[in-house]
This record gives sequence, C-alpha cells and structure tokens, in this order.
Amino acid sequence: MEMQSIEKVEEEVERVVEQAKELQDSASSLINRTSSDEQSLRQRALALDSNIRRLRSSLHSLPSKLADKLEDDLHRATCLIYDGDASSFLPNKAHGRFLRMFIGPINVRASHKDVQFKVKEEYNSYRDRTALLFLLFPSTLLILRSWIWDECLPAFPVQLYQAWLLFLYTGLALRENILRLNGSDIRPWWIYHHYCAMIMALVSLTWEIKGQPNCAQKQRGVQLFLLWAMMQGVAMLLQNRYQRQRLYTRIALGKAKRMDVVWGETAGVDGQLWLLCPVLFILQGFEAYVGLLLLKTAFVGVVSEWQVITCGILLVLMAVGNFTNTVQTLMVKSRFKAKMKRSKSKQEL
Amino acid sequence: MEMQSIEKVEEEVERVVEQAKELQDSASSLINRTSSDEQSLRQRALALDSNIRRLRSSLHSLPSKLADKLEDDLHRATCLIYDGDASSFLPNKAHGRFLRMFIGPINVRASHKDVQFKVKEEYNSYRDRTALLFLLFPSTLLILRSWIWDECLPAFPVQLYQAWLLFLYTGLALRENILRLNGSDIRPWWIYHHYCAMIMALVSLTWEIKGQPNCAQKQRGVQLFLLWAMMQGVAMLLQNRYQRQRLYTRIALGKAKRMDVVWGETAGVDGQLWLLCPVLFILQGFEAYVGLLLLKTAFVGVVSEWQVITCGILLVLMAVGNFTNTVQTLMVKSRFKAKMKRSKSKQEL
Repeated sequence: MEMQSIEKVEEEVERVVEQAKELQDSASSLINRTSSDEQSLRQRALALDSNIRRLRSSLHSLPSKLADKLEDDLHRATCLIYDGDASSFLPNKAHGRFLRMFIGPINVRASHKDVQFKVKEEYNSYRDRTALLFLLFPSTLLILRSWIWDECLPAFPVQLYQAWLLFLYTGLALRENILRLNGSDIRPWWIYHHYCAMIMALVSLTWEIKGQPNCAQKQRGVQLFLLWAMMQGVAMLLQNRYQRQRLYTRIALGKAKRMDVVWGETAGVDGQLWLLCPVLFILQGFEAYVGLLLLKTAFVGVVSEWQVITCGILLVLMAVGNFTNTVQTLMVKSRFKAKMKRSKSKQEL
Repeated sequence: MEMQSIEKVEEEVERVVEQAKELQDSASSLINRTSSDEQSLRQRALALDSNIRRLRSSLHSLPSKLADKLEDDLHRATCLIYDGDASSFLPNKAHGRFLRMFIGPINVRASHKDVQFKVKEEYNSYRDRTALLFLLFPSTLLILRSWIWDECLPAFPVQLYQAWLLFLYTGLALRENILRLNGSDIRPWWIYHHYCAMIMALVSLTWEIKGQPNCAQKQRGVQLFLLWAMMQGVAMLLQNRYQRQRLYTRIALGKAKRMDVVWGETAGVDGQLWLLCPVLFILQGFEAYVGLLLLKTAFVGVVSEWQVITCGILLVLMAVGNFTNTVQTLMVKSRFKAKMKRSKSKQEL
C-alpha cells in the first residue's frame, strides 16, 4: 500500500473514534434531557390527577344538575390524561406476581399510544390463530377416535393437545398481563381464568389416559372435555370478531377525537353481542356440566384419581366465574347505554 | 352550599379541564420531539457502525504493527457505541421465536444502561433462589424416599417437582432471551439447553410413576435423575457466585471507565474458575451417564415407554452440548489472556 493511502486510513480511524465519542456524548445528554422533561411531566400529571379526584369528591354537595355537568367535564379531563399521550407519564402499574415470576422486572410498557394499539392488534390476531387451532385440534381427535381409533383415544395425541393447551394459556396470561400494564381495561377475572386453565392443563398432563377394556367409560371425561373445547373454539372466534370491531371503532374515534373514545365503545357492535351472549351462556352451562360429571365419576368410584376431582372443581369454578363476569359486563354496558340515552334526551330538551 | 363556593368549584373544574388539555399538548410535543431526536441519533449510530466495519475490513492490507494499533482503536470505538448510552439507539435485535410465542412483540429492551445492569442483577438473584430450591427439592424427595416412603416414591410429589422444573426452565429461557436483547453476551447454547430441559420436564410429567412391586427397579431412572438434579444445584450455586463477581467487576470498571469493561472480564475470579470447571465436567459426565442408563433400561425392556427414550436422548444431548460449550468458553478465555499478556509485555518493552 502506498504511504498516502495508509495515512488516509489512519486519519479515518482517528475521525471514527472522535465521532464515537461525540455520539456517546449526544446520546447521554439526550437521555438526561429527556428523563428530566419526563420527570416534570410526570409530576404535572400526578398533581392534576389528584386534583381531579379531590374535585370529584366535592361534587356531591352541589345541585344535582350542575354536579352531573361538572362530573362529565371531569370525566373528559380524566379521559384526556389516561387515554392520551400523557398516560405514558403516569406512574407504571407494578408488575403482577405472575409476570415477575416469568420475565422478571423488565419494563413492558409501550411509550407510544400507536404501539399500544399495535400490541393489542397482535394479541387479537394471536387469539384468532389459536381459536382456529382450538377448533381443529379437539375435533380432529374426536373424528379420528370414531374413525380409526375404535372409540379409544391413544395417550400421546391427547397429551400433545394438553401440552399445547398449557403453552397456549401461559402465553395468553402473559400477554394479557402485559396489556393490562399498557392500560387495557381487561377484567382481572379473565386472567385468573387463564391461570385456572393452566393448572388444569398441567394436572391433566399427569392424568393417565387409560385404554381397553371399558375404554369408552374410562375416557368419558376426556371426551366431554374435547367437546367443550370445540365449543370454546367457536366462542373464541365470535368473541374475537366482536373485540376487534370494538378496537377498530376505538382507533377510528381516537384518531378523529381522542375524547370520544369511551363514548364509542358500544357503537356498531350491538347486533353481534346478541349472538355472542347466548353462545357464551350455553358454553358456560356445558362447562359446569362437564365439571359436575367429572366430580360424579370420581365420587361414584369409576375413576378416583385426584386429577379427576381437581379438574372437576376447576371447571365448575371457571364456569361460575365466567358466568358472573359476563353478566356484570352486560350490566355495565346497559347502565352505560341508559346514561347515554338520558344525556341525549336532555340535550334534545 | 353558598353561591360563592359553587362558583369556585365551577371555576376549578374549568381550570382542571384546561390543564388536562395543556398536559396532553406538552406530552405529545415531548414525545414527537424525543422521537425525532432519537431518529437522528439512530442514523448517526448506524452510519458510524457501518463506517467502522468498512475500515476494519480494509486494515488487513496495512503493516501488521499499525494494523494492530488501529484495530485496537476501532475496537474501542465499537465498545463506546455498543456498551455506552448510544447502544439504546442502535436498531433492536429482533425477538426470537420463543419470546414472540410467549409475550408477543412488546419491546423488552431497557433504555438505560443502569436498568440493564439491574435486570442482570435480578436475574442472578433469581438464579440464586432457584439454585437453593434445586438443591433442597430433590434431596428432600430422596431423603423421604429412604426414611418414610420405603424406597418407593409416590407419584404426586415427583410430579410437583417436575411441574416446578417446567416452570423454572420456562422462566429462565424467557429471562435469558430478554437479557440477550439487552446486549448480554450469553452463549445461545445455554438457552437451547433450557428449551431441552423444558421439553424433558414436560415429557416426564406424562411419564407414569410406577409403584410396587419392584418399585426400586422401576424407579431407578427417577432416582438417578434426582441425584443429578442435586449436583446441578451445587453447580448452579458455584456458577452464580462466579457470574456475580464478574458482573460486579464489570460494573465497577464500567463506572470508572466505560471503555475498560471488556478488559476487566477475567480479573479476580480466576481462582473460582478452577473450582467450577471440574465440578461442571463431573456433572456433565454424570448427566450423560444417567441418559445412557435410561436408554439402556428402555432397550433392555424393563420400562419401554417412549418417555424413557426421549428423556435419555435429551440428557445425552444436553451433556454433549454443555461439555462442548464449557470447553469453548475456556478456550476463548485462555486465548484472551494470552493476548492480554502479549500486549502487556509489548507495553513494557
């Protein structure tokens, strides 16, 4: 190499080292500046939030018409803080135990609203994919059972299915915990439901799948469980459609005018809800029925392993919890609608 | 309420609504400003990184002494970019499939170096806690086996232990994937090892624990596995001590002078390494031995379930992988030391 080009390389290396130092300096100054800006916004958001709470508690002593109007104003301010960009500066909700156990204390909060919607959208498409499998996996098992396996399920495919359920519910529970940290208003029960389902999948893995003789009788529980799982798949597909349309409405309204997000929640999806609800209730009834059947077989003495009793109790528990929470959701929705109607007719007056 | 105080409340509500709007505006302008600043830093970091790569590939045509010096300079610049604050502006490594399957596409990268160290420290203390359980759980089972259970383990506590193993390895695999995204240089094998261990725990859950008669013979595999797990506990405790001291050295040096981080890696912990290595090698030998014994029992025909064969193959696989990777780590360390010595003696000349 010529002397000139050697010198040129040396110079370039020197410049690169210099640039690296400059980059490091600008990076650390940006980080410091941003975190002090964030700190001050955080304090403003906190002060405002406690102010709103204080004012809200003082409203009850006002004349009711005025109190209603001011309550609405305060509600709008709260929406601005919690649904807008400012929400990322409110203090982080603490990690639940479940999330901490699995992934430790790493921050999983998205700082931008758009990213939060993207996370939600990904969660929905994950649910879509799994709902299809939820439908296909057990129905394949049941079809093969009567076509090929002579009414007697072999252990391996069933255990594969149970392992898949364990993995699926763990993933759902993790994602929903993360969504909650990102401001989703998912009811805590649905997460507890997934914990129960995880325990059930784990317990059913240790549950010996018995074969001939009397296979049909011994496998009655497994068979009922598979039937229930198929119905669950249909319900998940319906639920997903409903949730997704709700999300799209929210995004559209959120883009048009952030404040209206809450008011748009039930718009345009009422028709679907009246298809979804009966399916959900039938499913919950069937879930409780399978649970009670399992408990009956355990106490009558055909199969008396502890796994049968545990799964029976868990199924009944989940059915009761699901039912209570579906009813509560419907009640909240109808109360909200009544309020909307009232305020609309007031405006017309 | 008096008229005056009613008016005061109305005014306050109005002010609060106004403040909420202002807060929303400053929040969104801060977010926009920060993300455009970050964008420009990101471009600078990327350009610099590709510049360094280009220069490094052009060094081979220089005289070797000069090339060595410039190589060192470039290495220092790389360390500044990848170990300093600028590293948070380099493009995110893509989530591995494993992490995406469990928690979706949420960002788990800590933006501050301090937080990254905290995550690492928490990971270490998690390992400490689990290492103790790793020692206590199987030893309790083995002690109870000879004292109370008359040489015949009951199924439930063993299955509880296997479920715990499954949970533990899932947590470790998730945390290590997150650490990798945060710039940890953990070898990929150790994560694959945890995947293997997860599969093994899952498989062993479906493995029927047989009782009398001939319990001792049928449970030989389980017993050996528990013995191996106890030794694993000891090795984990030793490894944790070693890793933790390495981290402290890194933090101390990192605070003193960020550039020296890499040079401090082996300082002060050499003595421990010579205790750790023989223990690790004995453990790996024993792991392979247990695996081969399982395969032997399966082929001789005492227990011929598919679970036995799978667990045997997995154990042998893990033993071979662990051995190869420990040897490779030792070789890298000794090569690094030789280089250090050489450059030190050069400086003394």
